[in-house]
Amino acid sequence: MPKQHSTEQYQQLRTVSAVALRSCVRTAGYQGHTAGLACGCLQANIIILPESHALDFMRFCQRNPKPCPLVGVSETGDPILHTLGEDIDIRTDVPVYNVYRQGSLSESVTDIKKLWQQDHVAFAMGCSFTFEDALTKAGISVWHIEHNKTVPMYRSSIMTRSAGPFGGEMVVTMRAIDKNRVDEAIAISKQYPLAHGGPVHIGDSAAIGLHDLSSPEWGDSPPPVGDKVPVFWACGVTPQNALMRAKLPLFLSHKPGHMLVTDIDDQAEVPMYSAP
Amino acid sequence: MPKQHSTEQYQQLRTVSAVALRSCVRTAGYQGHTAGLACGCLQANIIILPESHALDFMRFCQRNPKPCPLVGVSETGDPILHTLGEDIDIRTDVPVYNVYRQGSLSESVTDIKKLWQQDHVAFAMGCSFTFEDALTKAGISVWHIEHNKTVPMYRSSIMTRSAGPFGGEMVVTMRAIDKNRVDEAIAISKQYPLAHGGPVHIGDSAAIGLHDLSSPEWGDSPPPVGDKVPVFWACGVTPQNALMRAKLPLFLSHKPGHMLVTDIDDQAEVPMYSAP
Repeated sequence: MPKQHSTEQYQQLRTVSAVALRSCVRTAGYQGHTAGLACGCLQANIIILPESHALDFMRFCQRNPKPCPLVGVSETGDPILHTLGEDIDIRTDVPVYNVYRQGSLSESVTDIKKLWQQDHVAFAMGCSFTFEDALTKAGISVWHIEHNKTVPMYRSSIMTRSAGPFGGEMVVTMRAIDKNRVDEAIAISKQYPLAHGGPVHIGDSAAIGLHDLSSPEWGDSPPPVGDKVPVFWACGVTPQNALMRAKLPLFLSHKPGHMLVTDIDDQAEVPMYSAP
Repeated sequence: MPKQHSTEQYQQLRTVSAVALRSCVRTAGYQGHTAGLACGCLQANIIILPESHALDFMRFCQRNPKPCPLVGVSETGDPILHTLGEDIDIRTDVPVYNVYRQGSLSESVTDIKKLWQQDHVAFAMGCSFTFEDALTKAGISVWHIEHNKTVPMYRSSIMTRSAGPFGGEMVVTMRAIDKNRVDEAIAISKQYPLAHGGPVHIGDSAAIGLHDLSSPEWGDSPPPVGDKVPVFWACGVTPQNALMRAKLPLFLSHKPGHMLVTDIDDQAEVPMYSAP
């Protein structure tokens, strides 16, 4: 069972580099969420599955680049993500992992050294922290950030484009945006194609199958939208949903919010690390 | 041997849609280049290889998104590119194909119905026509377009990030740009990550191993740069170079300049076709 961290511990980590943060995760047992940590560094959603499903999964990502913006893929059986930073070992450097068996969440663990297999391939996908940071810097208020909550996530009626056994509904996040800032929020997020890009839907939530925004499937329940406009972005939980539907015997992911922190500049046009 | 077309035939084609153009290619024997045709539609570089190498090739594309911006990938053995347009059959809809055997160009053919195998996977990658169009619209003069020539291409000393057997030098294109328009050319091309994005090098060509710009490896020899600045972009011939080095027994590609014309809007954030 991952342990809880005090607010003080979290605040201390806010000033450390991505390398130092991963070291805390790997050897000092940090098991908390990574929102607001190693600012300016790209954080990534993680999926790990056997090579026999890797080509179909990459096709799924190519066809659904908004929910699944690939930023790194390991060699088969090699747990080091050479293109994303200095000595990133995907077996130990994520704060908490989810283990799925036969399509269901089985357990959460803090390393996967015993679960990593010689035929495993690790996939890293960009995450919304990048564009949320940009929204915040532009002075666009986002409720869940201001209240230290998790963004609400919903299974929408927007269907992904399938590839092999992978398909199903797109999971979306919702942020209620001031009416007069919506265009700006769209423009800012479009600048980050590796962090889900522009929204997938704006306004009327029923049009994408969502009838009660107060009950998200994951994350925290938001207050009523009121005068604001609900804006929906593709979510990195979509691939977990697709893999659960496919009922693979075993796949691994990060625990939502507990991301891999990379050494890639989150403004980089191309996510590619070279040793100094 | 592909046939030559008259300027008149080419001019007639400039007004037809992408669907009609592909029909001309498939059934009326058009075998010419596709520059300037079906304006506004995304055109694509094509690579076809066996599934046994497909995962490594996708990893190569993920690690080298500037030369290899994937815009579509077929299912294994299915020659229809469902996500790129209406009834695109990759065996017949490219004007001219190059056939490579043991890493060398073996022949050029106008359809690959007899060469297509049940284990083949087709990959489509964006091409520079998209950003060249945008440069032209902005009034930035590009020599090879104004003179109806092919852009000069060079094997640079910039190394790609390897994946499995695929690696080697990045092939680049060169466009000499007026000094006072360089920043604008960079900004415009950066808007098209699916069409090679921003330049990979600006100025001093010796710094990327090019000592004689008048002798490109492919394409037409440009005039001296003079007062202009040589600007280098990643080129879609890079994957052909990587595959030749890997000496695959058989792989297929489009003939440079003779691209697949898709139904995707070349301004689209995500290259995804849905039947109307």
